Amino acid sequence: MLPSSARSSSEDTFFVGNPDTTPSGEVNVSGVRLSDGVSFLGFTRDGQDAFEPFEDHAVNVPQPSRARQWLHALTEEPHVAGTAQDYKTAIYVRDQLLEMGFSVEISEYHVLLNYPKKVTARLIHPEEFKIPLRESGFPLDKDSYSETAFPAFHGYGASGKAEGQVIYANYGLVEDFDRLKDLGVAVEGRIILARYGKIFRGLKVKNAQQRGALGVLLYSDPADDGYMKGDIYPIGPFRPDSAIQRGSVQFLSLNPGDPSTPGWASVPGARHIEYSEISEMARIPSLPISYGAARPILKGLAGFEVPQGWQGGLPFAYHTGPGVSEIEIEVVMDYAIRPIWNVIATIKGTETPDRWVMIGNHRDAWTYGAVDPGSGTAAWLEAARAVSEAVKNGWKPRRSLVFASWDGEEYGLLGSTEWGEQFSEKIKEKVVFLINVDSAVAGLDLDLAGVPSLRDFMLQVAADEKDPRQGKSLRSLWVKAQQEKWATSGPVSLSRPEAMFVPQMRSIGSGSDYTVFLDHLGIPVLDVDFRGRYGVYHSLYDNFFWMEKFGDPGFIYHATAARLYTRLLMRASSSEILPFRFSAYGFALKEHLDELKRIIIRKRRLPEGHERLDWTSDFSTMDTVVERFFLTSQSLDRALDKVQGFSRLNRPSLGAINDALARLEQAFTDPTGLPGRDWFRHLIYAPGLTTGYASWPLPGMRQAIEQNRAELFAQESLRIAERIQVASEAMEQIQTLLAALRE
Amino acid sequence: MLPSSARSSSEDTFFVGNPDTTPSGEVNVSGVRLSDGVSFLGFTRDGQDAFEPFEDHAVNVPQPSRARQWLHALTEEPHVAGTAQDYKTAIYVRDQLLEMGFSVEISEYHVLLNYPKKVTARLIHPEEFKIPLRESGFPLDKDSYSETAFPAFHGYGASGKAEGQVIYANYGLVEDFDRLKDLGVAVEGRIILARYGKIFRGLKVKNAQQRGALGVLLYSDPADDGYMKGDIYPIGPFRPDSAIQRGSVQFLSLNPGDPSTPGWASVPGARHIEYSEISEMARIPSLPISYGAARPILKGLAGFEVPQGWQGGLPFAYHTGPGVSEIEIEVVMDYAIRPIWNVIATIKGTETPDRWVMIGNHRDAWTYGAVDPGSGTAAWLEAARAVSEAVKNGWKPRRSLVFASWDGEEYGLLGSTEWGEQFSEKIKEKVVFLINVDSAVAGLDLDLAGVPSLRDFMLQVAADEKDPRQGKSLRSLWVKAQQEKWATSGPVSLSRPEAMFVPQMRSIGSGSDYTVFLDHLGIPVLDVDFRGRYGVYHSLYDNFFWMEKFGDPGFIYHATAARLYTRLLMRASSSEILPFRFSAYGFALKEHLDELKRIIIRKRRLPEGHERLDWTSDFSTMDTVVERFFLTSQSLDRALDKVQGFSRLNRPSLGAINDALARLEQAFTDPTGLPGRDWFRHLIYAPGLTTGYASWPLPGMRQAIEQNRAELFAQESLRIAERIQVASEAMEQIQTLLAALRE
Repeated sequence: MLPSSARSSSEDTFFVGNPDTTPSGEVNVSGVRLSDGVSFLGFTRDGQDAFEPFEDHAVNVPQPSRARQWLHALTEEPHVAGTAQDYKTAIYVRDQLLEMGFSVEISEYHVLLNYPKKVTARLIHPEEFKIPLRESGFPLDKDSYSETAFPAFHGYGASGKAEGQVIYANYGLVEDFDRLKDLGVAVEGRIILARYGKIFRGLKVKNAQQRGALGVLLYSDPADDGYMKGDIYPIGPFRPDSAIQRGSVQFLSLNPGDPSTPGWASVPGARHIEYSEISEMARIPSLPISYGAARPILKGLAGFEVPQGWQGGLPFAYHTGPGVSEIEIEVVMDYAIRPIWNVIATIKGTETPDRWVMIGNHRDAWTYGAVDPGSGTAAWLEAARAVSEAVKNGWKPRRSLVFASWDGEEYGLLGSTEWGEQFSEKIKEKVVFLINVDSAVAGLDLDLAGVPSLRDFMLQVAADEKDPRQGKSLRSLWVKAQQEKWATSGPVSLSRPEAMFVPQMRSIGSGSDYTVFLDHLGIPVLDVDFRGRYGVYHSLYDNFFWMEKFGDPGFIYHATAARLYTRLLMRASSSEILPFRFSAYGFALKEHLDELKRIIIRKRRLPEGHERLDWTSDFSTMDTVVERFFLTSQSLDRALDKVQGFSRLNRPSLGAINDALARLEQAFTDPTGLPGRDWFRHLIYAPGLTTGYASWPLPGMRQAIEQNRAELFAQESLRIAERIQVASEAMEQIQTLLAALRE
Repeated sequence: MLPSSARSSSEDTFFVGNPDTTPSGEVNVSGVRLSDGVSFLGFTRDGQDAFEPFEDHAVNVPQPSRARQWLHALTEEPHVAGTAQDYKTAIYVRDQLLEMGFSVEISEYHVLLNYPKKVTARLIHPEEFKIPLRESGFPLDKDSYSETAFPAFHGYGASGKAEGQVIYANYGLVEDFDRLKDLGVAVEGRIILARYGKIFRGLKVKNAQQRGALGVLLYSDPADDGYMKGDIYPIGPFRPDSAIQRGSVQFLSLNPGDPSTPGWASVPGARHIEYSEISEMARIPSLPISYGAARPILKGLAGFEVPQGWQGGLPFAYHTGPGVSEIEIEVVMDYAIRPIWNVIATIKGTETPDRWVMIGNHRDAWTYGAVDPGSGTAAWLEAARAVSEAVKNGWKPRRSLVFASWDGEEYGLLGSTEWGEQFSEKIKEKVVFLINVDSAVAGLDLDLAGVPSLRDFMLQVAADEKDPRQGKSLRSLWVKAQQEKWATSGPVSLSRPEAMFVPQMRSIGSGSDYTVFLDHLGIPVLDVDFRGRYGVYHSLYDNFFWMEKFGDPGFIYHATAARLYTRLLMRASSSEILPFRFSAYGFALKEHLDELKRIIIRKRRLPEGHERLDWTSDFSTMDTVVERFFLTSQSLDRALDKVQGFSRLNRPSLGAINDALARLEQAFTDPTGLPGRDWFRHLIYAPGLTTGYASWPLPGMRQAIEQNRAELFAQESLRIAERIQVASEAMEQIQTLLAALRE
């Protein structure tokens, strides 16, 4: 039988590699010319024939009406981590999974959490104005009048009282504070008003705190998140002027998880650091506010007209401050060690029960959490129902399926991180990969992030699901969108005018529960959801009414998401060989290197008066090892394709092959971690040190460039190169093992 | 004596060429390493020694207080072209120049002009609202209450009555209307509301008219021109909510000048086409309105939420319409053939009086015109005073100096175009180059546009003037700003990581009186002014109050502009050899070609469903001729540098050399013109067919790419290549002539 690529035929075939790097066109063979109808990755022909009927049946299980029911139940009340309402959702989810036939346990952790005891913010000058910390009600949406929701506050926000003049600091980036300093606007002793966006909110507080600010107000500007995006609630899905983005102000890029147990698990009875002893913690009071509340404060700022890029969408010219506006913030937090509850459900594999395919989502929410994370949990439950039906129908997964419902994500990825820290060795041994869910339906456009070695698998699955509105395969729509972005804003090289489009999933940064798996433990992860017109993030309006009216009125995207998860889970737990392909990783490493080179070129081009990189950045070692990785990844993919053409396998050493495939990602980890943040051990992917959410590929090198440190650049290049070499060797070993396989 | 480059030393030395294209480093010698203290371009040592004292004296003449007086006099009343108030300014300017000792004449043209007889616009549904067509008054600014200003209207706007629903069309670009069509929003039979910006306003009306709209309202959106840029009048310099941008809706990119005499001069008694017979003219009524007036109209639009990039700065989500808003426009224009008055003043040259160095500015304004064009006329008058003082002081310019005060620019570059059409042969013979002024001070940042062969001359002059605020040379600030732009947003090539910065002036498009000179006649032009925080363009607030309070409170930039013009004029009319250098042209042609290649690459990368370029674009001929031009330009510059090192010249054939230098630009013109617009004869530079203002370098090729026409691309490449060859030959001939020069 021919390898999969040779059997492709459909309209959905999409791309090839760079002709100048692979003139033979061999790249096409390496698993990227995936088309509808090609055999499933990792399956022999017989294997697929036996498996496919089970999948065909299972994907008919998820139903919009059921997803709607789950969501309705899950969004009954606000359920912040550690509360009685949160516990109710844990029991509910556990009971549903038990009923489906899973083995289920609740794993409890005792973590540091804060609830608001007293939060007030007032404009005290030029006139008294109490800043609202609750949303306005709208009659048709009963949930918009909540009796039980906390007033708006920040997870891990500090207690304290602050009073002073206000300085507007744009997004609160390091560059923004630098700019204020250049202008001569003092931050010390003042209250910072900054807009949400660009980076994780905790880093905004960190930046303000480091510069001596007394307190911080964070608001959603209508230019980023409000009427400038489209019609606002209750007319449309976007953020209205009273909606407040709650959230955690943990210093996420340094250390996720329970801050009182850094690096160890918060199991009951564990040692906790005293709150006052925790380093890297918000120590000045902060509160989230709406743009309706920010408006009079901003209006009362004098000082400089803001620099370019700082103006937001409120209808007047912004100023840096200070001005007549004076603010008083008072925050009293109730900090305590409180319980949270992960729900872990398992269907045991028949052949290798000690190898797990995982899917995880959090369950805790800042308010009702219809989108975040209810939509994810609803789809996750539908996927659970689908696989349990498949088992009832006779399907026998080789590997175990593990469904995790994490708690405490909103405070700082607590449930997943503590679990990951508790079972780190077990996870590295057993988990073959993790699908992360979070907000499954925040819009109607498929969004894919993940490690590149799962791209081909993900796209093969996406090719088998159609977009409900457009009737085309999700893959073709996703690829088209990526290609449009590449065409209009990707780099152009005149010396390689015919460079081909290489679609890639977004690189993993942080901000969801995949973090401990990829960044700390080196587990391959996928993050799969639908995004789009979502303007009620972390507000009281992220509720059932919003979802039914705007987000996914027919709940068809919930069902579609559930089908995607079902296919991913079933194939990955049934395939003889794990469905990894590595060419995309080779392309990605090249592109990440190129991107760093472009950043350096731009910095070198700046005229005097700017901080310029004047040291020589030596890429030769990296270029060499990446080229080897690139070539090895292609020959490994060819070898994997070849095996996949077999009708069956004599399987002398599938265990060794699969373990090596699943653990290849671990080759990129280094126990000494990244510079200044040793919890982060993955040397290829990490959240940006100054971004929190957004990924910095090759983070050590990127950090060296950002901090203009030649010796760090050399040191990190070497460490990264070493990890890539180890990965290349691992790929070569897998090839040797594959060569021994016979039909 | 060494050539100029070898004598450079100062901190202000700035750049070199592309090392990979000129590995010898020879580029440095070709006039680009210009520094303070290097000998003036075109002068021998003796020549400069004799000249310099006159310039040193003359640049002390321009005074802020005098510029203030000129501006005060010029902005006494609104003076729209052809009105009695306009005539008064002609007499005033003539008298001032006569007094300075110029020979002055007024050249009158009889051109088609429209004044508003009746202009009304009303929101008629959902409630009656009379749209104001005058600005609000502000007590401290007496001019904001004008008795004599016309209500807001459009030059060359059509009479007519239109009533209907409203469609919002973003900037009114071709792409915007295409987008509406894709969405299924009908334009036919409706009134278009579009925002100013991106392209010349007449093309917005053209686009609407072609698609069957009944009428057009154009407004300034606060995101582009209003509070989102900074504080608004009367607190700051930016556009307040009642300010209206008047202006012409001529179809500028097709045919500037009097539309009733296309291609010939509107001298008294000339034949005029009937208004009804004029092709390419607005035929549906249009009016300019403020964003204060646009607000309720936009608020009343339903239909689709706008596509990405369409949202403006008013505080609600924009919709395409239609909606409840219905508008009635009634426009009655008084069209007639009316006189306009250019003032042409001359100081005769002593050696070659039949060779002219020109400086031109228009005098007519939509209202008071303090910035546009009063600031220019004030600086121009101060430059006139400076050169006339120099003459009184004993300076004898070799070439004649011609000061032109154009009329009717605002309607469509009328005065300059008719003059250019009347004297086309004389101009091509005599004019060595033109400095265009227009708004000299619309802010505090030097802005330079022009043909590349004047870059070195311009920068040498800019090196000798300091920025009044920052105390650094204007050149160093300008170069630094260009370099920052290049560093942050210029293209990056990984295969040429060390590509050097080549500063270039902006390419000439259209929108001012240089148009007939460069685009129709092939005269080299410079456009020199200060730009920045200017928000009252074409409104009643473009008046003396605005300039004194916001624009240039001390009038020091007016004096600085005057000194720049004085140096340019005096050097160019005194140098033995004209101060051209051509290496920058070579670099510019390469960059223009590269830019077209990048546009093509991006278009080719688009996925299916987009209009894609699928024909082969053959650049080989162009690459070859541009490379020859590039190399020839460098050897010509070396030859020019060499002559400049002489202490004096035996001058056997300076006339032939200078004529050849001045007419090199004419080599780029082709009497058959550009495809579809034969008045535009320059094959290297033209305003964009669909932009009006912005330049399209290599316009025939660009048009072919935009229109996706392979055969046009081939044909235009050939024609352009031919012109570049002719220019290369001309450069070689100049080198031969230069070789005959002896010290």
